[in-house]
Amino acid sequence: MNQTISFITLGVADLARSRAFYQALGWQESSASQETIAFFQAGSVAFALFQREALAEDAAVPSAGSGFSAFTLAHNVASEAAVIATLDEAVAVGARLVRPADKVFWGGFRGYFADPDGFLWEVCFNPFVALDAAGFVKLP
Amino acid sequence: MNQTISFITLGVADLARSRAFYQALGWQESSASQETIAFFQAGSVAFALFQREALAEDAAVPSAGSGFSAFTLAHNVASEAAVIATLDEAVAVGARLVRPADKVFWGGFRGYFADPDGFLWEVCFNPFVALDAAGFVKLP
Repeated sequence: MNQTISFITLGVADLARSRAFYQALGWQESSASQETIAFFQAGSVAFALFQREALAEDAAVPSAGSGFSAFTLAHNVASEAAVIATLDEAVAVGARLVRPADKVFWGGFRGYFADPDGFLWEVCFNPFVALDAAGFVKLP
Repeated sequence: MNQTISFITLGVADLARSRAFYQALGWQESSASQETIAFFQAGSVAFALFQREALAEDAAVPSAGSGFSAFTLAHNVASEAAVIATLDEAVAVGARLVRPADKVFWGGFRGYFADPDGFLWEVCFNPFVALDAAGFVKLP
């Protein structure tokens, strides 16, 4: 299996609400989007929003679930100030601030917001990992 | 907020077991990995494995949760045969086959496997979306 992730799809309760949230953050939908699914290119990975019930049905699993979904998405930025600014921007368009930005023991600086469904986004400045020109992390 | 996803981090029950699973799939860890966190570069996004409790603690949320985690990762491949081969490969190293590969109404062909924690991977052939030389989807 090649070391590739093609799509990250979130199963959301209200697709219109989620679309509006990510658009308000400045994300632009692909023209491949449909009424029932929203696509956003985010580097080499595509980010998709799909109704939760439909996603469970596609995977042939029960849709019931609650509590911590045990994954996070991270958005790395180039400075501590950019962490704070990005969290503020997200909150201004309806995100919930889950953890205000603070220093981490390993030397980073990060906070978390939750999107309308509670999906967790870490906004992080990592002084040990450079970002390329497009803003993506390149690990050693 | 730039349209970038830097990391996808899965909160796992047994980090050694998860590391071994992804390594058995042929994924190579970054030298940035630590004993307590595994990193894999997967195109412009980094994939990380971290203990579930530690991930919840970092996000300052309760770690309790069960059932459908309401997200999927997808691994697109270039043919229907490659879908079947990839699902077989995953099952051979311990994945659970969640949905055997079949045709989807929109014209694709896909199946799902679950990793050791139940995280869902769709393996998909999408005849309408080309893959670039590195195997990544590029949406219009």
